[in-house]
Parts: sequence; C-alpha cells; structure tokens
Amino acid sequence: MSYAKQMLKTYPRDFNVDAGVLAAAIEALSDCAQACTGCADDCLSEQNVAELTRCIRLNLDCADICTATLRVASRQTEYDANVTRSLLQACVAACRSCGDECGRYEEMYEHCRVCAAACRRCEQACNELLAAIG
Amino acid sequence: MSYAKQMLKTYPRDFNVDAGVLAAAIEALSDCAQACTGCADDCLSEQNVAELTRCIRLNLDCADICTATLRVASRQTEYDANVTRSLLQACVAACRSCGDECGRYEEMYEHCRVCAAACRRCEQACNELLAAIG
Amino acid sequence: MSYAKQMLKTYPRDFNVDAGVLAAAIEALSDCAQACTGCADDCLSEQNVAELTRCIRLNLDCADICTATLRVASRQTEYDANVTRSLLQACVAACRSCGDECGRYEEMYEHCRVCAAACRRCEQACNELLAAIG
Amino acid sequence: MSYAKQMLKTYPRDFNVDAGVLAAAIEALSDCAQACTGCADDCLSEQNVAELTRCIRLNLDCADICTATLRVASRQTEYDANVTRSLLQACVAACRSCGDECGRYEEMYEHCRVCAAACRRCEQACNELLAAIG
Repeated sequence: MSYAKQMLKTYPRDFNVDAGVLAAAIEALSDCAQACTGCADDCLSEQNVAELTRCIRLNLDCADICTATLRVASRQTEYDANVTRSLLQACVAACRSCGDECGRYEEMYEHCRVCAAACRRCEQACNELLAAIG
Repeated sequence: MSYAKQMLKTYPRDFNVDAGVLAAAIEALSDCAQACTGCADDCLSEQNVAELTRCIRLNLDCADICTATLRVASRQTEYDANVTRSLLQACVAACRSCGDECGRYEEMYEHCRVCAAACRRCEQACNELLAAIG
Repeated sequence: MSYAKQMLKTYPRDFNVDAGVLAAAIEALSDCAQACTGCADDCLSEQNVAELTRCIRLNLDCADICTATLRVASRQTEYDANVTRSLLQACVAACRSCGDECGRYEEMYEHCRVCAAACRRCEQACNELLAAIG
Repeated sequence: MSYAKQMLKTYPRDFNVDAGVLAAAIEALSDCAQACTGCADDCLSEQNVAELTRCIRLNLDCADICTATLRVASRQTEYDANVTRSLLQACVAACRSCGDECGRYEEMYEHCRVCAAACRRCEQACNELLAAIG
C-alpha cells in the first residue's frame, strides 16, 4: 500500500472526497512531478538541447505545479474547495501543455515518451478528482 | 533594485508582458510566500493553536501555491499563457481564502494582520498580471 | 517499474552512482515527503494539537528538505558531488529528528507510526546513497 | 521593513538567534532563490545554451535548496539546531558551486553576473547565521 493511501487511512476525522480517487490523484501527481524533473534533466543532457528549451521550460513548470498540488491535495484539515479546485485546474493545464510538448518527441526520446505518459495520466487523475469534488 | 527586477532586465530576449507589472507580481508573490510560512509558524506557537488550524492550513497552501506561481511567473523562455493564467487564478483563490481567514484574527494577532495584508497585496498583483497577460 | 527507475533508465549519458541505490533513495525521499506532509496535516486535526507542535514543525521541515533532496538527487546532468553530499547529510539529520519525534507518538497515533517508519527508511536510503557516492 | 523582519517581530515567543542576522539570511535566501530561478531561465534563452548546462543544473539545485532553507530558517517553533545547521551547510555548498559557475560567465552574461553576486551574498549570510547559531 502506498504512503498516500496509508496516510489517508490514518486521517483522524472524516473527509468527503472518495479516498480511492484522492489517493490515485496524489500518486499520479507525485509520479508526474518526478517524471518532469527527470525529463528536464535528461533534455539538458541531450546534444540538441537547444531544440528542447520549450520542453525543459514546461517540465520545470509542471514539476513545480504538481508538487504544490500534491501538497495541497494531501491536506484534509479545514479543506477549502475553491483553492483545491482552482489549483487542480491549473495542474490540468500544465499537464496538458507539458504532455503535448513531450509527446512531440516521444518517438525520438524515451524520457519524453515516459514523461508524456505521466503527464496524461496526471491530467486524467486531476480531472477525476475535480469531478469527485464537484 | 530588487533581484526580480534585475533578473528581468537581463533576460536575453524580448517579452510581451509589461516588465513593471511582472516584477511587482514576483515581489508580491515572494513576500506572500514568506508571510504565510511565518504566519503558520507563529500560529503554531500561539497558546490557542487549536482555534487556528484553518489559518495554519490555508497559510501552508498559500505558501506552496505562491512559491510555485513565483517560479512559473519568473520564467520567460517559451512562455505558455494558458499555464501561467490558470496558475495565477489559483493563486488569487488561495490569497483570498488565506487573507480572509487571517483577516478574522488581525485584531488579535499581529502576525495575522501582517499576513492578511501580504495576501491582499498578492491577490491584487496577480489580478493585475492577469489583466496584463490578457 | 516506478517513474524514478524509468527516468533513470532513459538518461542519455552514463552516470557513476549505482542506479539501484539511487532509485531506492529517490523513492524513499518521495514517500517520506508525502508521509511528512500527511502527518503534519493529521496532527493539525488531532484534538491535542497543542502537544504536537514539535511534531508538526519537524514534519514541515522534513517534507521541505526531502522534496529539495529528491529534486537534486534526480538530476544527473553535470552532477556536483559536494552539493548532493551535503544535502543528503542535511536530509539524514531531518529524517532522524522527525522520525524520533513521530516515534514518541507511534503507539498513540497511527499517522505518527507510519511517518516514523517512512523517516527511518529515508534516513537509511540517504545513508546508502552517501556511501555509494563516496 | 521587509516581510521577513515583520514576521520575525510578530513571533509570539522568544527566540535565541539574533533577529537581525536571521532576517538578513532569510532575505538573502529569498533573493538567491529568485536569482537562480531567473538565471536558469535566462540561460535557456541564450543561443549557446549547450555550453551553459552546468550553470542551469546548479541554478536549479541552488534555487531548490535556498527555497527549502528559507522555509526551515523562517520557522521558530520548536527549533531544531541540528536540522537547521546541516541544511545551512548544504546551502553554503550549493551557493558556492553555483556562484563559482555563474562567476565564470559574469563578463559574458549580465544574468550570470547578477546571480553570482546573489549566491555569494547568500553564502555569506548563511555562514553568518551558522556562526550565530553556534
């Protein structure tokens, strides 16, 4: 069982969002932050780094936004739906832009293929959490 | 001159957003992240911390979101308006919730008064940057 | 296979550290950041939050330090051993302090038990990575 | 008066470190994180980005470490000297490496000159805070 699930199980009060949907989003956010940090670094080591600057920039943005969203989504105490919802929407936008850009290189670079998949899965998990929040 | 302004001045390409509006937003985001981190810690040291859990939670969220927004707004290379815009909107929501909550305690706790002011200024600076981005 | 392992596999150049030790550290750092963020929030929701302020404070520190260490350790390009080594040492100190504090409550609070275990595993994984770096 | 100083003034308990030294470190850490984030982005926009990958990588590391150090140093509640001290040492190492690398380009790139100065000032402020902590 992941730490995301374990920590949700130990929360001392009730929470309204479906725990399975929340845990899936937390895991996808953590994976996507990790993939984007790695992909930015891999791009920096490619010979044609000059062609990958848009990919690197969006990787850095997406890693920062996923990390913040991961933290906010992990907090249950005195939950504020407006803050969580608008941040999840920003995360969807970041994952879409970064996933699209990495997707352009996925036949050329394995790290872009892996990162594009992580972005798409995270975008979907955030949308599912948005639907569950209502 | 602040580092935000100095770094914007040294950017090697053109950028479309008004540099003064952008620098003001970056400084307000940095101040707000700092104020929220401090206010969460100050609340933890208050005797009636149990009444301040909503304030602490929103302080932590607002600090995380301002820090991510600060980083994204500071990047000019291959700027993606959708990502920046949706993140600024999330930051406005966080600053409003946190500023309102801190505002409830501003006559009781000086740190909440200072933090509420930082949140309101940041909310306004983000809205001004959103207007400039269009 | 975790994203940490997948991203390490796709790195376009050679790297000197054992990939298995590095991937284990990255996963332990990610788990520990997640556990500490969750434990701080769980503590905030406990009735006797006033007794848990040291636990919350160390959870926040440990989450921030693990997140930074996770990012630095994930980067292979132009690796600087001095920076990575000193940050891993700081992370070991944070995991030890936080694990000890959570450990004091592990019979009372399940979230502290889970978090203490995550801190201890992360401390060990950082020490193993330090030994591999040399 | 900066927010760092204002927040330190409002802290509800005593703290042992000299407030002036602490506030100077917090401001230098915030400036350095900002300068490094900006310099990494500026480097990405330079035509010869391929020669600047070491600078970018160290900028990213230094921004992450300064941000974590800024947060930890800003917390006064239940202060743990071991954690703060070891993190400040890691921050000194990061500022030195990044400042040296940026310094190699300071006659060529204005952003590297500004960033090298921010790193050196932050290294000194962290060392002064280390001396004050003892």
